[in-house]
Amino acid sequence: MDDIRFAVLGTGGIGRRTLEVSQHKDGLTAVAACDRNGVALDHDGLDVDELLEATEGNIASGPQSGPEQSSGDEPRDSGPEDDPDMAADGGTATAETADGVKQHGEQAGIVASSQGEPTETPIDDIIAESDAINAVLLALPNLEHDFIPRVAERFAEADYEGVMIDVLKRSRVIGMLDDREDLLKESGITFVCGAGATPGFLTGAAALAAQSFVEVEEVEIWWGVGLKSGYEDNRGTVREDIAHLDGYDIETAREMSEAEIEALIDEHDGVLEFHDMEHADDVLLERAGICDAEDVHVGGVLDVRSDEKPTTTTVSVTGTTFDGETGTNTFELDDATSMEANVNGPALGYLKAGVRNNRAGHYGVFGPADLMPGF
Amino acid sequence: MDDIRFAVLGTGGIGRRTLEVSQHKDGLTAVAACDRNGVALDHDGLDVDELLEATEGNIASGPQSGPEQSSGDEPRDSGPEDDPDMAADGGTATAETADGVKQHGEQAGIVASSQGEPTETPIDDIIAESDAINAVLLALPNLEHDFIPRVAERFAEADYEGVMIDVLKRSRVIGMLDDREDLLKESGITFVCGAGATPGFLTGAAALAAQSFVEVEEVEIWWGVGLKSGYEDNRGTVREDIAHLDGYDIETAREMSEAEIEALIDEHDGVLEFHDMEHADDVLLERAGICDAEDVHVGGVLDVRSDEKPTTTTVSVTGTTFDGETGTNTFELDDATSMEANVNGPALGYLKAGVRNNRAGHYGVFGPADLMPGF
Repeated sequence: MDDIRFAVLGTGGIGRRTLEVSQHKDGLTAVAACDRNGVALDHDGLDVDELLEATEGNIASGPQSGPEQSSGDEPRDSGPEDDPDMAADGGTATAETADGVKQHGEQAGIVASSQGEPTETPIDDIIAESDAINAVLLALPNLEHDFIPRVAERFAEADYEGVMIDVLKRSRVIGMLDDREDLLKESGITFVCGAGATPGFLTGAAALAAQSFVEVEEVEIWWGVGLKSGYEDNRGTVREDIAHLDGYDIETAREMSEAEIEALIDEHDGVLEFHDMEHADDVLLERAGICDAEDVHVGGVLDVRSDEKPTTTTVSVTGTTFDGETGTNTFELDDATSMEANVNGPALGYLKAGVRNNRAGHYGVFGPADLMPGF
Repeated sequence: MDDIRFAVLGTGGIGRRTLEVSQHKDGLTAVAACDRNGVALDHDGLDVDELLEATEGNIASGPQSGPEQSSGDEPRDSGPEDDPDMAADGGTATAETADGVKQHGEQAGIVASSQGEPTETPIDDIIAESDAINAVLLALPNLEHDFIPRVAERFAEADYEGVMIDVLKRSRVIGMLDDREDLLKESGITFVCGAGATPGFLTGAAALAAQSFVEVEEVEIWWGVGLKSGYEDNRGTVREDIAHLDGYDIETAREMSEAEIEALIDEHDGVLEFHDMEHADDVLLERAGICDAEDVHVGGVLDVRSDEKPTTTTVSVTGTTFDGETGTNTFELDDATSMEANVNGPALGYLKAGVRNNRAGHYGVFGPADLMPGF
């Protein structure tokens, strides 16, 4: 495949790691990156090392208020720390990152890099250059469910022709993208949604594993995350995850005080177990014809007092073969593979698959399983 | 995807089961099938049930001699029983099937079906109709290494535009297809090779599992096959597999008497274990950029005295993540899933993926891993 020139919207955890991982492979050139303070653009390829080094620990983040946030139009921080929709491999997102993240005034975020320029309109600045960009990774927060769909809309309105890819998690966002599919198709956009770890890597694994079967009865996605050293930076994750526990929802979890959360964690000895989370794997597998959304179950275990994964991330696909046998195929990720490794490699893989489709004239909304061989 | 109209060359085990499995899914219409005696053609769709029922146990096979065999141009039998290159999931191929297979003279094979017509030129008859065919599954024997490549050549010479797919196993055949790539491209053929269980299903799983890693160190493919009830029909498989044992090769295995084989099996208590087999997974993963061919190892265990799999079919991919950790991701097939289920579903999945590529104008030779998302 020819070289792919890509942009990253958001330089939090996922944006940064994707830039880093892309350097390990040929054929991927990062030409643009932005956060809410600025934009770095170089059509000959960014100096990724400089950009990452200059901005390490200097992520443009902040409280969820202020003029630059209220429009909902600018890229805020982009890491899992900041966005419940952008973390994958389970539960490492947080909704709050003001604590402990360095801020440097006018030099905050990407502007600390010699390649970064301050701007009030980072996304528009990248849209203005998008003729020379093949793919855009949306490593943006999506605190409002329609934030990413609305960013896609802005690219479409500017007649962008190319790939957009996100790592969102919430099932309901897929429908919001589908609502905009005509607009995306007119523009020539191939939008790959839910393409991180789960949904993403594990959704693809489920689609593959399903091929032994003529009928899939159940897909179980079960993740493990150890978060001891990352706990302080991920308090918001834990809060978000608590919303999935019995007796809680997003609202009640948001209203809890820090002390209440600590008490709850103590009560669970630091280990929280989740079942039947709202994860887009369900709608993404259904749209690919693998199984019914209701037969997909996502859960996992988060240990905030250990860096070891408390359980092995596993996809189990149970189905019936053409010759009438019932079996369960499984895909397991080694406990040594980090959430970041399992998000960013697959995201770039789906990005490349998206570009192949885009160049073939396949526009619209695609999930990970749509990009897999399947019968 | 629009409806796919496909033909099956060869109606042995793999051809028959693929016809059967295709009926479980929408969008796949079998319009042609042939064996060395005849051809069944119906552009409105074959009556697969009738065809399978009429020909069950009546596979056109026979000794490896006689005028219809000597040309090497006609489809002989096509099942794993008959072709070391067409079995997958390890070792269920045999080179001899004359024993125990019904023959009905002029009504042998597909001609026993009311849809079958005798012909001296079954492949040419299908080529003549290939304008209305989107994909051709080559479920043909490949006793001569270049048999399948030569069939592809004949379709290309007739300007066939569409997909061809095979389930071959031997590494060296891939190069023979590559040698013909220009011809295939000119014709508009998307040739998907090695698309059964292994290579095929498991090659794709390895490509997927590799996405956690920036560097893949080793891919180990390990299969289990239990063959008690199929032993009589698969004596040739066992002979073929023996060629992979230490101290044996294809020639020495061919020269063994039945008694010598039985003695060898007794010596191993019915369980033969294989290491470092010549399997095209190696070149197929290398061409997709996953790892070096020499880092791929294929082996397995064949138990001729039990129908239970003696070991669980597993793909293990070991690599290093971008953050420097080494780990092994694994994909396991349930012991209850038969070799047939693991060949035919994936073969049809790759066939569909091939059609998507063909319709997008991507011609040439593709392996399973080339059709997977990968970064």
